[in-house]
Amino acid sequence: MNKVKKIAIVGYGNIGKYALQAIEAAPDMEVAGIVRRPTSLNQPVPKELANIPIVGSIKELEKVDAAILAVPTRSVSEYAKEILSLGINTIDSFDIHGQIVSLRQELNEVAQQHNAVAIISAGWDPGTDSMIRGILEFMAPQGLTYTNFGPGMSMGHTVAVKSKAGVKDALSITIPIGTGLHRRMVYVELEEGADFEEVKQSILEDPYFAHDESHVFEVASVKPLIDMGHGVVIERKATSGQTPNQLIKYEMRINNPALTGQVMVAAARASFKQKPGAYTMIEVPIIDYIYGDREELIKHLV
Amino acid sequence: MNKVKKIAIVGYGNIGKYALQAIEAAPDMEVAGIVRRPTSLNQPVPKELANIPIVGSIKELEKVDAAILAVPTRSVSEYAKEILSLGINTIDSFDIHGQIVSLRQELNEVAQQHNAVAIISAGWDPGTDSMIRGILEFMAPQGLTYTNFGPGMSMGHTVAVKSKAGVKDALSITIPIGTGLHRRMVYVELEEGADFEEVKQSILEDPYFAHDESHVFEVASVKPLIDMGHGVVIERKATSGQTPNQLIKYEMRINNPALTGQVMVAAARASFKQKPGAYTMIEVPIIDYIYGDREELIKHLV
Repeated sequence: MNKVKKIAIVGYGNIGKYALQAIEAAPDMEVAGIVRRPTSLNQPVPKELANIPIVGSIKELEKVDAAILAVPTRSVSEYAKEILSLGINTIDSFDIHGQIVSLRQELNEVAQQHNAVAIISAGWDPGTDSMIRGILEFMAPQGLTYTNFGPGMSMGHTVAVKSKAGVKDALSITIPIGTGLHRRMVYVELEEGADFEEVKQSILEDPYFAHDESHVFEVASVKPLIDMGHGVVIERKATSGQTPNQLIKYEMRINNPALTGQVMVAAARASFKQKPGAYTMIEVPIIDYIYGDREELIKHLV
Repeated sequence: MNKVKKIAIVGYGNIGKYALQAIEAAPDMEVAGIVRRPTSLNQPVPKELANIPIVGSIKELEKVDAAILAVPTRSVSEYAKEILSLGINTIDSFDIHGQIVSLRQELNEVAQQHNAVAIISAGWDPGTDSMIRGILEFMAPQGLTYTNFGPGMSMGHTVAVKSKAGVKDALSITIPIGTGLHRRMVYVELEEGADFEEVKQSILEDPYFAHDESHVFEVASVKPLIDMGHGVVIERKATSGQTPNQLIKYEMRINNPALTGQVMVAAARASFKQKPGAYTMIEVPIIDYIYGDREELIKHLV
């Protein structure tokens, strides 16, 4: 029998909260503790953390088998290298698609040196969507796959708008318009005295928005518009062998941070079954992510 | 650089024909030859096999890296054990769900003894559908998955009807009626003098049909009704962590034997990257099924 694994959560924003719920629902894992920034340590402790160690460094926790890095994407590399160096597996949901290959190379070296495993970009896109795209590709190798996001809030675009001068709060919604193209619906709450037309112009010129059909609206308050639901439709029309018109479609409507937290916890489970190194989700057998006896799972799923 | 792998096709029915097309479309494989029953060897050679060795035993072929077993499910175990014993990898699309675990155990032993790899039940169900069910399960571990087949021809049900006294030809179509339940639409062409009501009764009482809503029709000729298109809808409504109502749906409309042949060829590719033993598709990393450079695939898919 496998022992219960001790999982630390690094960062306690939205993803960290949902990852904790997923660990608590997993029969084979236990939370080892929460690692927070020193500034957060002085704040009142959320109710659900009452009996959980909260520390400023993962080294203060007794025993940790894997760490879920619920930190901003740009901090992933630094945290992962530090924690892998302690021989602790790491799971991240690094989401800058163009930099995944180099993150994998970097972490692979550190992980192998310290006999640990990193599973990177473990969310839903990159993540489970990547797995679906991979399966669709070998089912029908010649053709096109379109990934359509939304409707749902885009974190990256929202942050880009929030950084503009004159913007107090913002929300950018991604609307799929088919064939992998998207419309951006942007809602801004302005600071006192800011000029809407100026803010709007600066958003429309931003590289995040300039290449898509983008619409900007002023609202009195952004808060009431926020909804964590998101969705994706992945479509492929392609050829198996010499047979065209193989049509495959994958669609989901989900709570975004809840799915990301859950996928990271599944990846933590899979990390214990891999050889030292860094892996993307398409490099790990599906069965390793799932809780349960191997032959029972085959009987039930295959 | 990897060398081009030599693939034998054992059996040349529908699946064998489409597997050949998939091998011919694959840049990293070449057909080594076709293994046919002695009775088929005396028949005229199909045009597409003009330049391909056709033999009665795989031992007559020069060099074979893997064999695609395009044979009836009940013959898989025998062929696989014989071919694995020669140190040649095997790929089958064994589809009796209740016996997959025991086939895996049997072939695992032979494969390990002879330093070969078997990938079993490599089709679309069992096969890629099993992979989808596995991914959906770890995305939202608590809840139900329904697999809905069709509309499309069921081989198993069609064969069951054809074996009835008085039936000259038959076709059984599977129609999905939701939540994993199915209607069976059965078309029979009768032999001279056969009684339709008797045939109908015997079909409705057959265990293949008795548990489903089944309808039997007499037709003058079955041939014009045959269409190799098939489909599936897999649906899951489940909970990630403590968040319910995560909705995921997978749907495909495909040429049935073309997809099976293509998936078997992808599994042959993956077989060369596994340690000796027998595997179901959910036990093999997705990336191993796909042709191409590893880092390029990660860049493109993840």
